[in-house]
Amino acid sequence: MIKTRGYAAQDASSPLAPFDFERRDPGPQDVVIQILNCGVCHSDLHQARNEWSNTLYPSVPGHEIVGRVTAVGGEVTRFKVGDLAGVGCMVDSCQHCPSCAEGLEQYCEQGFVATYNGRGPGSENTYGGYSQTIVVKDAFVLKIRHDADQIAAVAPLLCAGITTYSPLRHWGVGPGTRVGVVGLGGLGHMAVKLAHAMGAEVTLFTTSPGKQADGQRLGADTVVISKDKAQMDAQRGRFDFILNTVAAPHRLDDYLQLLKRDGTMTLVGAPAEPHPAPQVFNLIFRRRQIAGSLIGGIQETQEMLDFCADHGIVSDIELISMKEINAAYERMLKGDVKYRFVIDMATLTTDSQ
Amino acid sequence: MIKTRGYAAQDASSPLAPFDFERRDPGPQDVVIQILNCGVCHSDLHQARNEWSNTLYPSVPGHEIVGRVTAVGGEVTRFKVGDLAGVGCMVDSCQHCPSCAEGLEQYCEQGFVATYNGRGPGSENTYGGYSQTIVVKDAFVLKIRHDADQIAAVAPLLCAGITTYSPLRHWGVGPGTRVGVVGLGGLGHMAVKLAHAMGAEVTLFTTSPGKQADGQRLGADTVVISKDKAQMDAQRGRFDFILNTVAAPHRLDDYLQLLKRDGTMTLVGAPAEPHPAPQVFNLIFRRRQIAGSLIGGIQETQEMLDFCADHGIVSDIELISMKEINAAYERMLKGDVKYRFVIDMATLTTDSQ
Repeated sequence: MIKTRGYAAQDASSPLAPFDFERRDPGPQDVVIQILNCGVCHSDLHQARNEWSNTLYPSVPGHEIVGRVTAVGGEVTRFKVGDLAGVGCMVDSCQHCPSCAEGLEQYCEQGFVATYNGRGPGSENTYGGYSQTIVVKDAFVLKIRHDADQIAAVAPLLCAGITTYSPLRHWGVGPGTRVGVVGLGGLGHMAVKLAHAMGAEVTLFTTSPGKQADGQRLGADTVVISKDKAQMDAQRGRFDFILNTVAAPHRLDDYLQLLKRDGTMTLVGAPAEPHPAPQVFNLIFRRRQIAGSLIGGIQETQEMLDFCADHGIVSDIELISMKEINAAYERMLKGDVKYRFVIDMATLTTDSQ
Repeated sequence: MIKTRGYAAQDASSPLAPFDFERRDPGPQDVVIQILNCGVCHSDLHQARNEWSNTLYPSVPGHEIVGRVTAVGGEVTRFKVGDLAGVGCMVDSCQHCPSCAEGLEQYCEQGFVATYNGRGPGSENTYGGYSQTIVVKDAFVLKIRHDADQIAAVAPLLCAGITTYSPLRHWGVGPGTRVGVVGLGGLGHMAVKLAHAMGAEVTLFTTSPGKQADGQRLGADTVVISKDKAQMDAQRGRFDFILNTVAAPHRLDDYLQLLKRDGTMTLVGAPAEPHPAPQVFNLIFRRRQIAGSLIGGIQETQEMLDFCADHGIVSDIELISMKEINAAYERMLKGDVKYRFVIDMATLTTDSQ
């Protein structure tokens, strides 16, 4: 077994703290990765604090993982020692249901194995990327073509990037489409960058007038302050597709009205309490749709990483040390991050001694 | 002007009663129709009682109209005196916006002119099919190929038929698709007949155990009593498409869970109060969609009428005289109709003398 150190929540109310555990010895299809960086997703906080009522403790969060391969099993051909590699939200799936067969492991009918708070091969709790080392089946490891000095800013692509890339692609965003992005946080800032790079006309909706300049810098053609009724009214019936990244409950009707006939608004944020119920009239009168989308499949995640490498896209990040994680959670709750915290995992050993 | 007699509500609280008014003299593109039958849609009741807060009085409801052509304007080539003809929910639209250009007049960006409670050519209130005669632009008049003795049962196709046919077609229902129909009323019973005729595997969801045999007679392969949790659980993740015809507020989550990955539930009933808010998780975890759909375009309505003629499909109806309309409304409120009231318009003169 491989001894490793991580940061874990021991229960819903304690701060994260150092935690020593073991990774499995690599099997023939496994890749061993020394973790260089791990992004901090809002899900990490929900899970650490048991806000979805399903947390297995101790809980080592983290599913935006980048690192360097240190060993590979005998059947692994796609990776060799020294390669950069990434791991996202999934580390396994049944691999034979219709969804897996279509490369949509995130919709695996048996349920995929989550990178943390999942059920690993022996049914044990999985531990995520707030740790020094991880061992992952090669089919769930991603190649990274970005330069090594960009690697910290690549980490958030593994969740925030694919969660926004997949629906933009699935609903056909590209040149000639008019796309709205609701919310400028970790997901929203990636959605703006990606939709812009795909050639769409991008409008960012934010409640914060202070984010106007940043929205434009990130690639939005237009920034609409969503609290301003006149600005919102001017956007009615204009959009082919709206990607709504806001997890806090809010009035979906305000955005449904902005869709063209046959337009879709896709939700990628999951609020703990439901959004206020939308008016059915807003769906019926223009045959509009509300949809949901969950991360993306492994093949599509690779496609996204390659697309980002080709277009020079990374996340805007704030690099933190491991021991700053609890303070970072508090800042996330205030929306005080532009736009993703990423842990420098080299700080783990020092910090936790 | 053409003198005609109808039945109108004079205000929100009075019963419908005889009302004499005039139809315009036919212009070059107009068709004059002697109304033989008019179906009774739940919208008629909502409108007569101002339940959508937009009723123009006096209000002559009725948008499921069948009759015989008695005169045509000089430019009309599609109809001649003596033809059977139908009129549905629309009597005009802008005819040049993108939706009209695609034959989707129901989504006309200027707003279509409704058959009743709309704004006619001179901006006057339009009067519907609870009347002896109607004058309609030929582009909004439908041809009827059913036998003359079926005509009363054809009337409901003009709203209940097209409202269910259009979404079934739009979402690709046919052989190999598994379709759920929620609710067995005027819309639901048409949806079952149509989806069955399209070759789909049809499951009817009803709260009423007493409707089981009827559901099967109408074409459902399976009837599920939606109050029975075990029956509902057995249907999880099975459906490509669900057509939800229930206008009363109910838990959409109960049906979202029955959809496969990428499945859609389309709502065609518009509740006065919103449905309880659905859980976003039910959308996200299988990339499901909730949509709305409004009647259908004129070309599609003709296609639906022809499809029904080819497949021997009509509505199950209960024929009433004009003076029975107020009692029929009360029975509709109790769900006591199998499955559509249709007025025998020949009773209008006699009844109202």
